[in-house]
Amino acid sequence: MSYEKLQLQPLFDTIDELKPKFIERLQKAIAIPSVSGDETLRPKVVEMAHFLVKELTTLGFADIELRELGIQPPPVTDPKLELPPIVLGRFGKDPKKKTVLVYGHYDVQPALKEDGWSTEPFTMFHDEVKDILYGRGSTDDKGPVLGWLNVIEAHNKLGWELPVNLVVCFEGMEESGSLGLDELVAQESKKYFKEVDQVTISDNYWLGTTKPVLTYGLRGCNYYQIIVEGPGADLHSGIFGGIIAEPMTDLIKVMSTLVDSIGKILIPGVSDMVAPLTDKEDALYDAIDFSVEELNAASGSKTSLHDNKKDILKHRWRYPSLSLHGIEGAFSGSGAKTVIPAKVIGKFSIRTVPNIVSKTLDELVFKYVNDEFKKLGSLNKLKIELIHDGAYWVSDPFNESFTAASRATQDVWNVVPDFTREGGSIPITLTFERELGVDVLLLPMGRGDDGAHSINEKLDVSNYINGCKTLGGYLHYYGKA
Amino acid sequence: MSYEKLQLQPLFDTIDELKPKFIERLQKAIAIPSVSGDETLRPKVVEMAHFLVKELTTLGFADIELRELGIQPPPVTDPKLELPPIVLGRFGKDPKKKTVLVYGHYDVQPALKEDGWSTEPFTMFHDEVKDILYGRGSTDDKGPVLGWLNVIEAHNKLGWELPVNLVVCFEGMEESGSLGLDELVAQESKKYFKEVDQVTISDNYWLGTTKPVLTYGLRGCNYYQIIVEGPGADLHSGIFGGIIAEPMTDLIKVMSTLVDSIGKILIPGVSDMVAPLTDKEDALYDAIDFSVEELNAASGSKTSLHDNKKDILKHRWRYPSLSLHGIEGAFSGSGAKTVIPAKVIGKFSIRTVPNIVSKTLDELVFKYVNDEFKKLGSLNKLKIELIHDGAYWVSDPFNESFTAASRATQDVWNVVPDFTREGGSIPITLTFERELGVDVLLLPMGRGDDGAHSINEKLDVSNYINGCKTLGGYLHYYGKA
Repeated sequence: MSYEKLQLQPLFDTIDELKPKFIERLQKAIAIPSVSGDETLRPKVVEMAHFLVKELTTLGFADIELRELGIQPPPVTDPKLELPPIVLGRFGKDPKKKTVLVYGHYDVQPALKEDGWSTEPFTMFHDEVKDILYGRGSTDDKGPVLGWLNVIEAHNKLGWELPVNLVVCFEGMEESGSLGLDELVAQESKKYFKEVDQVTISDNYWLGTTKPVLTYGLRGCNYYQIIVEGPGADLHSGIFGGIIAEPMTDLIKVMSTLVDSIGKILIPGVSDMVAPLTDKEDALYDAIDFSVEELNAASGSKTSLHDNKKDILKHRWRYPSLSLHGIEGAFSGSGAKTVIPAKVIGKFSIRTVPNIVSKTLDELVFKYVNDEFKKLGSLNKLKIELIHDGAYWVSDPFNESFTAASRATQDVWNVVPDFTREGGSIPITLTFERELGVDVLLLPMGRGDDGAHSINEKLDVSNYINGCKTLGGYLHYYGKA
Repeated sequence: MSYEKLQLQPLFDTIDELKPKFIERLQKAIAIPSVSGDETLRPKVVEMAHFLVKELTTLGFADIELRELGIQPPPVTDPKLELPPIVLGRFGKDPKKKTVLVYGHYDVQPALKEDGWSTEPFTMFHDEVKDILYGRGSTDDKGPVLGWLNVIEAHNKLGWELPVNLVVCFEGMEESGSLGLDELVAQESKKYFKEVDQVTISDNYWLGTTKPVLTYGLRGCNYYQIIVEGPGADLHSGIFGGIIAEPMTDLIKVMSTLVDSIGKILIPGVSDMVAPLTDKEDALYDAIDFSVEELNAASGSKTSLHDNKKDILKHRWRYPSLSLHGIEGAFSGSGAKTVIPAKVIGKFSIRTVPNIVSKTLDELVFKYVNDEFKKLGSLNKLKIELIHDGAYWVSDPFNESFTAASRATQDVWNVVPDFTREGGSIPITLTFERELGVDVLLLPMGRGDDGAHSINEKLDVSNYINGCKTLGGYLHYYGKA
């Protein structure tokens, strides 16, 4: 056992001792159905904020605030609906220590037993045979949020000083677009968040189910819509079929030219912008614990476009992809409807990676789509728009923070974590990096099969408890670095 | 004035005298919101059936029946929901006279003031300046249904004998798939409908707004769906974009190969089945009152695929067309959703015409779609299904019934009617022709701009009253033929 690990052992032991209490804390949190996407449950989201305030108070946090964010902008049913508050708190303010801001969210995805859950989603079920905690929010993100509080509790019990100053920022709208968060972060960057040296977020997942990971990169997402319109109103295909130019025909034609069936983006110039793969980067993928079988299990099919681990990971993390999501304005129900839709809006997005320049990408996409439409010689009108632009993010996996997290992970899990990227985006990562001008570390607690947005969401007890140890160990290594 | 017209003049004069009463009758009918598609309004549909029974009784009809059709099959909210009854009645049973069955429907499309109506849809509004009657059902199909009753009332007032035996068959589910009607017609073909020589339906519209028409043909409709599936559940495009085969990509590719932007069906063999255009048929289109401008007005755009009247009419009536209606299972809302749909179902239909053989068409479509999918080399699965098959219909516009209707139209409107076909289908036409083995005549009352399924549905008073005269005159000419 290393000297450092020996020093941390009492902390780890105390976390083990407190396990029943930590599980009970999570149970209480899961029991509050803080679904931000359901207006009728907004009082429960607010109740969850108050639950956290009470916990922070008991643990000895200072400067605790519930930051109100005002009225939720449309579309809403209740025009006076208030956004849930952001919970801020501070533990320690020693100018000799580094300050770590931890972000998490206390709202959850919707969940109904009828969706197919095996147990009530808002009543935590502890499967003691598998030692798994089931419940909405267990892994996303109540478990990790409480993880930080559990670390403080263990320190308090030991009578240990925290090796860093901790600032918490917990929001209640993450599952509904993080409304109001960007403004708050910008506004507090030189105030509440002034001393912050590092932002650490535990709100993603291991790649697989057995090996811990640290995440240093995310793809971005440019989301586009193509609007094709012709007739003044929806028409009947019996009366108008064959005599007018149909917008759906044109839209489908144009959408069919964007990507091929093996995932190749057909828009010229896009792949030219992708950072070349170096031998060093290529080698990074060798160590990572993943397989085609794991992808097949996750997708529930054998439709992998690549036959080996490395190509899969590269295409998930470091190459762009283009997905066709759907069409607004066309018939979308079951059965038969003989409509010629007057105005149809095709939706697609491109996942972006270094060194794609978002603006250049837009120009390439717009030009290509307009050119393809012109080729059709249609009498309809086409317009293309960018409706969402989220940048990609890549950090340095060898900086102080990642090194500290890696050491803590090794102490707890006895394995060097995989350094991973993710295919999706976590916009708040970029917000913190940009507004506070500090590094961000993504330090996940749960496993790849936790089912964050699905039925039967779960968190393994081992991940919860070892996760607390990892978060605690990380603060120690980072504090001393 | 011809001798025949002179004989009919008292009937026409009596109809004019009764105009206020006929308008009042329509007002009462419109006031009953007999929306068959709204389960909560089912009692109103039944109320409308009883309204008709009362009218028929007063007018002296015999053998009046309300035929119950049993429970409405799923999908329904109320599993015990009863179908509205079919109203049967008989006026005269003289074996020396011919028997005409008139079909109509007493249910209507949904309508809400909030949809954009200028006046309450179920309160008839008589615009006395334009002399137009507004209200849901005015033209579709309460006006025409009451038209037949008005003809009887005028005969009764004159003390005239009806020149034919009349059988009425009014259904209450036409706007919701005519559930139960086919079975009833088949079942009564040798019973209640045994003596029927001719079926006449007034439930379509003039081609334009000024010239009466008689309709002798309808296109059919084969409706298909293409199902493409891959993953076991919807996936996130951040995590899975670029590494799995996406069903939407394949579906859009296949759908894009079906038809081009100028309406040409790209499935080999389909156009080869279309009956060749003879010079005689070609000449028929010359007389018809229609123009590109009328099409533009109707579509609310300048997206006509043809620059002259004849090509437009031919492509509406005698050539097939293919329309892409939409996609089930993909994202169809507004805004952005980064989903990779697991299973998508593309909907399209082909309007059929003589001499397309439905079964052969299906074979051509299935083979082509499967071949196009194979070309993609995709890992997903594709299946294609026919989900609705409605045959086309063409009658002889020079038979006794059409000749009688043409003469009556000339007497009333002082113009030879256009002999038209329609692009859409009216399935009941074929049911009657097949089950009773008699000719069917489509004798419309309303104009092309009545807005049957739209807001501000209307019936011009001139069409209502002259329509009654035409129906009456038709019975006389047909009875004597």
